[in-house]
Amino acid sequence: MGEPAGIGGELTLMAWLARHNSGPSFVVLDDPARLRQLAKALAWDVPIVSVASAAQAIASFSSALPVWPHPLAAAVTPGKPDVANAAAVQHSIENAVDLTSKGEAAAVVTNPIQKEILYQAGFTYPGHTEFLAHLAGIATPPVMMLACPSLRVVPITIHQSLRSAIADLSADKIVELSLITRDALQRNFGIATPRLAVAGLNPHAGEAGSMGTEEIDIIAPAIEILKNKGVEVFGPVPPDTLFSERARQGYDVAMCMYHDQALIPIKALDFEGAVNVTLGLPFIRTSPDHGTALDIAGTGRAGVASLIAALDMATDMAAHRQRSTHETPHRAQHGSASA
Amino acid sequence: MGEPAGIGGELTLMAWLARHNSGPSFVVLDDPARLRQLAKALAWDVPIVSVASAAQAIASFSSALPVWPHPLAAAVTPGKPDVANAAAVQHSIENAVDLTSKGEAAAVVTNPIQKEILYQAGFTYPGHTEFLAHLAGIATPPVMMLACPSLRVVPITIHQSLRSAIADLSADKIVELSLITRDALQRNFGIATPRLAVAGLNPHAGEAGSMGTEEIDIIAPAIEILKNKGVEVFGPVPPDTLFSERARQGYDVAMCMYHDQALIPIKALDFEGAVNVTLGLPFIRTSPDHGTALDIAGTGRAGVASLIAALDMATDMAAHRQRSTHETPHRAQHGSASA
Repeated sequence: MGEPAGIGGELTLMAWLARHNSGPSFVVLDDPARLRQLAKALAWDVPIVSVASAAQAIASFSSALPVWPHPLAAAVTPGKPDVANAAAVQHSIENAVDLTSKGEAAAVVTNPIQKEILYQAGFTYPGHTEFLAHLAGIATPPVMMLACPSLRVVPITIHQSLRSAIADLSADKIVELSLITRDALQRNFGIATPRLAVAGLNPHAGEAGSMGTEEIDIIAPAIEILKNKGVEVFGPVPPDTLFSERARQGYDVAMCMYHDQALIPIKALDFEGAVNVTLGLPFIRTSPDHGTALDIAGTGRAGVASLIAALDMATDMAAHRQRSTHETPHRAQHGSASA
Repeated sequence: MGEPAGIGGELTLMAWLARHNSGPSFVVLDDPARLRQLAKALAWDVPIVSVASAAQAIASFSSALPVWPHPLAAAVTPGKPDVANAAAVQHSIENAVDLTSKGEAAAVVTNPIQKEILYQAGFTYPGHTEFLAHLAGIATPPVMMLACPSLRVVPITIHQSLRSAIADLSADKIVELSLITRDALQRNFGIATPRLAVAGLNPHAGEAGSMGTEEIDIIAPAIEILKNKGVEVFGPVPPDTLFSERARQGYDVAMCMYHDQALIPIKALDFEGAVNVTLGLPFIRTSPDHGTALDIAGTGRAGVASLIAALDMATDMAAHRQRSTHETPHRAQHGSASA
């Protein structure tokens, strides 16, 4: 569902209109009445059907948008989040994880939430991802990857000031996140030997220490450790050349030292189509790479490309994962996944 | 000339091959014998003619590459810079500025130099740009702008560690460089009212101080000062959304807080075609946005797109500047340049 006062509802309707003939089929955990009302207000021809099982959802998908009912406590006004609906939002996330964990669904795709509203209702997690990690019962932090057809990036540090991101950078963190990323690319993306490019932190990757020493003290040692663990990895690469069209051919993922080093290039290259993928969870989770866009909610003007890309990527990942799970004995024997 | 052991010579030959019929016409300050030898080694049909005036260069350009002789002391081995040739390299820069200052040439376009070799010969400037500022006799530091057809960026801080770039950021610096940039876009690019976008430093531009305070303490105050000086300016903009295709329509130049914030997006979008423009000099200067590429020098494999883009941009800038100079009384009256 995501925040019902945001653009999630209309994006879901759009995604069904775009994909009800071709799939992938999906079920939305939301309030059927409010989606019916939204479709009517937008004059979009989206039949809504309430379902209570994955089989029902799949059977109905080509003729109607299947909704697993999560009734809202308060009527929705687009652009005006209401704390009275926070419990249903949180419940829809919990149930999506539950359905996926039980194998009823292949993956969780999350519409954006409005964190402040959830906080007011007692939600205590920094965001979606941390809540999902809690539901999954994992101790290691999940890893955020952003992906579009021409680039995958993983920021080593995320939502903190640039100053503190530099201070918090460590070889341990680079190694930990790189291993999670390598494993996820093997398991969920069908890449037998993922190639990791590790960015420098400083201009020209420090130019041998003349413009910063983090490459020498932190990043190069982390790369050595990863090489010793058998990871196909290179760097530290000068950050400004790492994302050129030619350079992008040379790796499967760029490990980036801070939020904007990762997000600037992917949003410059493909603002609409970038997908947020959470690595390191026991289930597959993707989400569109945008917020609730309260300012345009209800107008039908939001772009659906990122949600559709998130649905498609989750489907691809589930297929790779199924193959990789079936091939586990084979993998163990030969030491690499095969697509 | 740039470093004769680098790719500058072959790029110049290529640029003449690509543009001798259409122009813009240019004269290269280099050693005619070594260029003749290079063309022969590459089996490229580039006639070389020595000239001693702009008129001769223009007259010969369609039939032969005009070279203003700067004889080299030592024979050139591609990929192996020789300190014996450093004096000629430096002299060619001085003469290019001299010719441009006297009005013989419309602009200076510089091929890349190998700084370490010049340092060995007693060169004391951090780079090309600072040497040009010295030759121009200006006290304020010149400003580096990178430009491609879809984006212009100015880094406020350049060749220093990311940590020190954050420490050195100041409202004064942002204001000074923004004013130089605004003036140059009016004078040399024919933009009557340049629109400046100022990037934040931190993720999400600090999100109201929760992820860094430089936006509140430094960047927003600089923007206020600029607005009070009549500059069309907005920000601080979240760095990751500033370079999306849609966002780029909203400004003429992005003022960036550090080297890679500026260089990552432009090299991701257009690695080959980006041009380095020096603003704030009394003459026009552009250069290709790459180095000497010693590893492939002499092979003819280097890409000439950036040098040609630099020649074209210098030509456009000279045309705008001439118009703007002729229209000065009109401008003073109406308060804005017109193209």
